[in-house]
This record gives sequence, structure tokens and C-alpha cells, in this order.
Amino acid sequence: MNDIPIQPQPQPPRSDTGIQSFFLPPGTPGRPRIARAEGIWLEDTAGNRYLDASSGPVASNLGHGNPRVLAALEKQARAAAFAFPAQFESEANLELGERLARLCGPGLDRAFLVSGGSEATETVIKFCRQHAVVTGQGSRWKVLSREPGYHGNTLGALAVSGDAHAHEVFGPLLRAVDRVPAPFTYRLPANHTAESHARACAAALEEAIVREGPETVLAFIMEPVGGLATGALVAPDVYYRTVREICSRHGVLLIFDEVMSGAGRTGRFLAADHWPDARPDLVTLAKGVTAGYTPMGVMMAPAAMADTLARAGGFMQGFTYFANPLSCAVGCAVLAEMEERDLPGNAARMGERLRARLHGLRDRSPIVGDVRGLGLLMAMELVADKETKAMIPLERMAPYRLQQLGLQHGLALYCRRTNRGTYGDWVMVSPPLVVTADEVDMLADRLEAVIDAYVAELSADGVI
Amino acid sequence: MNDIPIQPQPQPPRSDTGIQSFFLPPGTPGRPRIARAEGIWLEDTAGNRYLDASSGPVASNLGHGNPRVLAALEKQARAAAFAFPAQFESEANLELGERLARLCGPGLDRAFLVSGGSEATETVIKFCRQHAVVTGQGSRWKVLSREPGYHGNTLGALAVSGDAHAHEVFGPLLRAVDRVPAPFTYRLPANHTAESHARACAAALEEAIVREGPETVLAFIMEPVGGLATGALVAPDVYYRTVREICSRHGVLLIFDEVMSGAGRTGRFLAADHWPDARPDLVTLAKGVTAGYTPMGVMMAPAAMADTLARAGGFMQGFTYFANPLSCAVGCAVLAEMEERDLPGNAARMGERLRARLHGLRDRSPIVGDVRGLGLLMAMELVADKETKAMIPLERMAPYRLQQLGLQHGLALYCRRTNRGTYGDWVMVSPPLVVTADEVDMLADRLEAVIDAYVAELSADGVI
Repeated sequence: MNDIPIQPQPQPPRSDTGIQSFFLPPGTPGRPRIARAEGIWLEDTAGNRYLDASSGPVASNLGHGNPRVLAALEKQARAAAFAFPAQFESEANLELGERLARLCGPGLDRAFLVSGGSEATETVIKFCRQHAVVTGQGSRWKVLSREPGYHGNTLGALAVSGDAHAHEVFGPLLRAVDRVPAPFTYRLPANHTAESHARACAAALEEAIVREGPETVLAFIMEPVGGLATGALVAPDVYYRTVREICSRHGVLLIFDEVMSGAGRTGRFLAADHWPDARPDLVTLAKGVTAGYTPMGVMMAPAAMADTLARAGGFMQGFTYFANPLSCAVGCAVLAEMEERDLPGNAARMGERLRARLHGLRDRSPIVGDVRGLGLLMAMELVADKETKAMIPLERMAPYRLQQLGLQHGLALYCRRTNRGTYGDWVMVSPPLVVTADEVDMLADRLEAVIDAYVAELSADGVI
Repeated sequence: MNDIPIQPQPQPPRSDTGIQSFFLPPGTPGRPRIARAEGIWLEDTAGNRYLDASSGPVASNLGHGNPRVLAALEKQARAAAFAFPAQFESEANLELGERLARLCGPGLDRAFLVSGGSEATETVIKFCRQHAVVTGQGSRWKVLSREPGYHGNTLGALAVSGDAHAHEVFGPLLRAVDRVPAPFTYRLPANHTAESHARACAAALEEAIVREGPETVLAFIMEPVGGLATGALVAPDVYYRTVREICSRHGVLLIFDEVMSGAGRTGRFLAADHWPDARPDLVTLAKGVTAGYTPMGVMMAPAAMADTLARAGGFMQGFTYFANPLSCAVGCAVLAEMEERDLPGNAARMGERLRARLHGLRDRSPIVGDVRGLGLLMAMELVADKETKAMIPLERMAPYRLQQLGLQHGLALYCRRTNRGTYGDWVMVSPPLVVTADEVDMLADRLEAVIDAYVAELSADGVI
């Protein structure tokens, strides 16, 4: 690992005109400025190169500069970048809808296309609600969700996101209802196995439905494989099956948020495909569908529900850029590339290779407590003590520090804390789905060097 | 007007795979399928051509296929379509932020870039709220708004949108507060002039603030020139000045939603520039900033507020595609084109030419009751009786019927009703800002033919 070049990061102060000015105080250094990107590599204006270890925010599934996607983007832009669905149809929209329906499978037949994951969450909630109203179930409006969990940053999406700190700040603006515990598998309550805890978490969902009154509960939304709110949490199989049974029993719609886990990332097109006996009623997608090239979010819904709304006057939803031809054409090219190159298969294979390396790191490093995930949606949980599972002191902001060390080692990591780190600190490891075996090894080498550097730093400070 | 080609519209049934399936019942005809677009023209796969009379949803400010925008789009896509702001900066973001700050002027210094107008509304509400919390004004959270009014289709944006029908359907999911009447100028209460009614509407804002408790009121959001919710409503000058005074008196932030009116459409960069004594504290933009080429929304905020949040740990907001380099590069090209070609100036000049033609139509047509707007954000109000101002019977869906007739006459009109038409029916007339005098005349000729055809239809049915 000694051959990894250490790149100095003397960034100029963050500019007043960039979006960083909302996050970084005046005078603090800015972030590396990206000049170009290709494949799994990003290069800044100073010539430093970064291996994209988390696909940006788990979005760049095809890597950067994909020729087929660029060609599709340019062709559609030159033909017609824009045509508004309240006036016109577009071939690109029809093709993308057909592709998505085929990939998602029966029951997830209709694609409502928006411009990001948050808009997709808002859309699926509104869709379920309007459907309830027009089918005589107007008493149903509560959308249950998990704590922690993340479904977006608009207020409707935040209301169903399990992040107590965000609810403290924005609480009065949110119509929030019950959240039920996410079935963590590493930090378990006393006297629980992962499986018994998962059963308890599923039971907590049913208790919440009964407590709220089943006739008032519209839906339950969850990430089938967690993202940044739970560090790629995968529950024991029994959890999915039981949740599905509970929802069906009470007439509650089951929504899978596959913004991060969908589009092939976990080794199947949908993470839901890993649990065929827990088929969701609706699914949201985003990120990987256009792989970062243009903004896109998706709600997949059953044809019967869409037809019901169409017959009742139409779904009361729409945005300037919904189903815009440019993003639809990009989505078609991304999905064609994904299918022809069997990127879900590659995600499964490279995921296993990556997992083996991360397990090796876990076994030898004093601060890697857990490795989890599915396919190329993986995370490592950081601890100060592997016996007690004690966290690294929160004020050290471990995920952010690792992100900084990553940059020095030519590794682009994306880290974000949920609820001020109450539940644990973790680092996503989620490279583009096009990653090769050699690239996985290089990523793992660099990640090991980063972890070792952090261990040295924590040891020097007497933290571990 | 007899030389306008009537285009048959034998559309195939709407496809199951397109987004139309959420709006149009199975078996109903689809919409024209756009194959290419250039300048102010859209062409469908059958070869029919449509003059873009409303810029899609008042978005395509530069028209279609602008070479400079396409070149910028392709250059940025090839360099780096995506770089996530939580990890990296981009030149395109810095340049767009600088351009927007300069165009918006002092006090609107910082640009937070998202992917549409609804996200911009959500962002400005969250920004104001978090700022209140970190500056010891945590009791302030209520965002007052106008009825009717429109600020977006996500749940947080819908909560401040004045559309009683939408609130009926989605009400339990909305944390909605008071709305105050919009100062309509055509349909006036008894014994009121437009100016006295405007004063009363402003007074109603102050009454609402006092009733709610000023210490609980965070902001007031309004469209300085109305969009589809009020049909390009422009209030008497006294309204803007008085609203500004009221907000300042009670420490309430004044937000102008310039998603539709901004980016040069009314003859100035911001509609706010028409009322320098009513300067807003924050502004949202979208549509015209990227002119339909890629999704973009903007919040412009004072530097001091942004710095306060940055020092307090950062604004708790972010989306996968926020400030994405591709959309930023498009925004830069659009604004450069707008400035170099003085499109706000063209909007003012062509707006006057269009207004003269619409006034002529109003004077001679039995169903055009009012013409209003500013620059190229114009609307006509439709009535069955110009004396009584009686509306055309609602079940005839006049705006939608005009949209259909428009297609037959090669005119793309965008129409949407607010609150089931409670306040009036109107048709936006808002061509791209690049429109020429000849094109304005052609638009007006076709619009006259459409109105005449509708009059004939209504007369034949005995409605007028």
C-alpha cells in the first residue's frame, strides 16, 4: 500500500458564489474543483485524481463520460430537449416507461418520471393519498416509516425520514407521524439476535398500525437495503416477509424506496427482487436510473391504480421538468448499457470481491466494526472499540475525517451523518457498477491506507 | 386569418408506458408526439408544426435548439456531467452563482441551486426556518401565502399554494396555515377599485400576521406577477410597497416566487425590479434560468443569512442533483445569451406589441374579458358575458378546449385550472423571449383564429 501517492489538498478558500457558501464558513478552504471525469476517475483542476469509491452520492452507476449516454444526450438535445407532458408526448418518455416496466416486472407497470429522489417520494405519497380519496378510503393518510431512514429533503419527504435532529429543526413544518425502529443487525438490543430483533421491529410496525388505527394508515415506506441513514442495512429475510404480511393484513400500501438500491446496484435490478415473497406495491427510483448524467426520479406504480386516477380526472401531480425528453433519453441509454453489459451481474460479482477485501480489513483493523450491504451497496461501521462497539467520539466527526483522508489518498468517499450520529458512524463503499476486479483491488488498497492513516491519527491522540 | 392551415389531430391512443397514462383514461387519444423543435416551433412525428405560444409551461425562454446552449451542454457533459457538492466544487456552479448574484443585485447574493421550482420553494422555506432557529427565533415557522397562488407540487410547496381543491385532497398531509386573498384587478368586490381592493388585500396580510401572532410568522411568499393560478395578475403599485412595509414591520421575511416571472420574462431580470421600493428578502427562480434545457431551480438569499447558517454547521439541505455541473453550465449559457441579446428588453418591446394585439382581440371578441400581465408574461381572461363577467360554464373546461383548438391551428397553448376554476378561466400567452415582431403577429393571428373558432362553437351550442 506504500505506493499510493499522497496528494496535498491546498484548496483555495471556498468561493462566495458557489453552493459551498451555504455549508462552509467564510474563509475556510473550498473543495477540490473537478475539471474532468472518466470511468471511475474524477480529476481536479490541480491535476489530482480521485477514484470514485461511492459513485458520488451512490448515483454514478456507469461511471463518468460514458460514450453511449453522451451520444444519447446530444442526440435528444439537438432534436428536442424539452416538450411538456401536459401538451405533448415524447418517444423518449414512452421508451423509458416501457424499459422500466419490463425491468421492474408485473405490478410495477407505470412510470411517473420526475427530477430526483425527493420528488419521487413526494409523488408516491401524493399518488397513494389521491388513490385512497377516490376509492372511498379518505380516512387513510398516515405514512409510517423507519427511524433512522432517509427519503429525501423536501418537507413531505422529510416528514417520513427518520432523523430526529432534522425533525427538531423543521418539525413545525412537517406533518410527521409514527416511525418504527429500523432492524439494525450490528448494534442489537440485549438478549436479541439479528433475527429476533428483526421480528420485533416488524412487530413494532403492526403495533404502530393498530395504535394509529389501520383505517387511518395509508402506507409504509422503507429502504429495502439502507443507504446513508443506516449504512447499507440489510435485514434478515424474515423481516421483509413479515412486513409484507402486516401491510397486506391491514390494507396498508408497501412502498420500497429504491432511490439508492435500485437500478442494478445490489445485483438485481431492484433490491426487491432479492425477496420475491415481499413484493412492494410501489417503488421509487432515482440516482442510478440516469446515473448522474441528468436529474431523474421515478415512481413505479400498478397500472390499475394509475388507471383509477386517470378515470377520476387524473393524478394531481406535475412539474415543469417531469418526463422531460432529455432526461428520458439519458435514462434509456443508461438502462440499455446496464442490461447489455449485465451490470447487475457485475455488481454481484464485484460486490463479493469487495466484501472479501472489506472483511479482511474488518478482521485486522481496530476501528472497522462491521461490514454490510448487498452487491455494490456496501458500508463499513466505524468503532473505537470492537469489543464494546463504542463509537469514536462524535466530535471527531469520523465519517467526514475519513472523507478528507480519502481525498489525500486519491479516493472520493461520500459520508453523511444521520441524526448527528446517534446510531453509528459508517462509510459507504459503493463504486460505479462498471468497476473491474483490478479497480476493486485498487479501491480496497486505498481504503485500507485511509483507514490505517486514521487509526494512526486516533492512536496518536489516545482515542483508541 | 383564413390562411392558417388547420391541422387534423388524429392521435393514436395514449400509450400505457408514457406519463400520459396517469392523466388520460385507457383508450383515449394521446397527445402529439414531438419529434424536433427549433426556435419557437415544435414539430410532431406526423409533421404538424406548432408555434410555442406559452414556452411550454413558461419555461422555454430561448426557444428550442439554441446553438450556444447546446454547445455548453455538450462541452460540460464531455468534461464532467456530475460532481457532488458535498465532495467537490465545479467551475460551472461558481460561474452560475456569480452571474445570478450580479443579475439579481445586492441582497440577493447567494444562489442555492436545485432541480426545479418546487424544490426551490421547499429550499427557501427550510432556509428561512433554519435561520430563524439558529438566530433565536424558533417560534417563527408559519409561511403565509395567497389564495389563489401556486408555488409547486411537492407537499411543502403545496401547503403554501392557494388551491382549495388540492388542499381538500392532500390536506391531512399538509401543514398549511393562513392564506390571504390575491389582489385581483378584474373581478373586484362591490364598491372597490383595483387600488382600493389591493389595499384591502395588503391589509388582510397584516391582519393575518397579527391574528397568527407575529412572533410565529416566518415569511410571506407571493408571485410578484402571477402565473397560472391568477392568470398573470399584476397588482397596483401600492400593493407591493404596502406588503413590503407590513413584512418589515413584523420581522416577516418577504419571498418572491419568480419561478415564472424571473429570468427576464417581464422585461427586467426579476419582476421585483419593477418595484424597487418593495425589494424581497429572498427570491426563487427556475424555468427561464435553464430555459427548459435541463432541470434547474434556484433560491437567491442574502449573504449574511447564508453565512449565519454556514457558521452554525451548514444549511440542512441537499439533493443528489443540486448544483450539478451540467445544469449549471446550461444556466450559464442561457444567461449569457439572455444578457448579450438583451432578451428582457425584447420581452418588454414584444410584450407591448403582443398586448396591443390582445387588446384588439379583447375589444372585438365576446369572450375575452380581460388582458393583463407584464412583458411576455401575459394572460387573457375568458368570459361568457363581458357585461356581467359571467364565466363560461365550468364543465366546458374552456382553457383545455382552447388548448385543443390551438393544436388544430398550429398553436401550442398551456392551460391549467386552479381550484377547479373558482376564480376565473384564463389562457397564458407567453412565447419565448426570442420572439420577433413577425412571430408575435403570427402568434396573434393564430390566437384570434382559435378564439373565433371557440366563439363559433359556443354560439352554436347557445352558450353565448
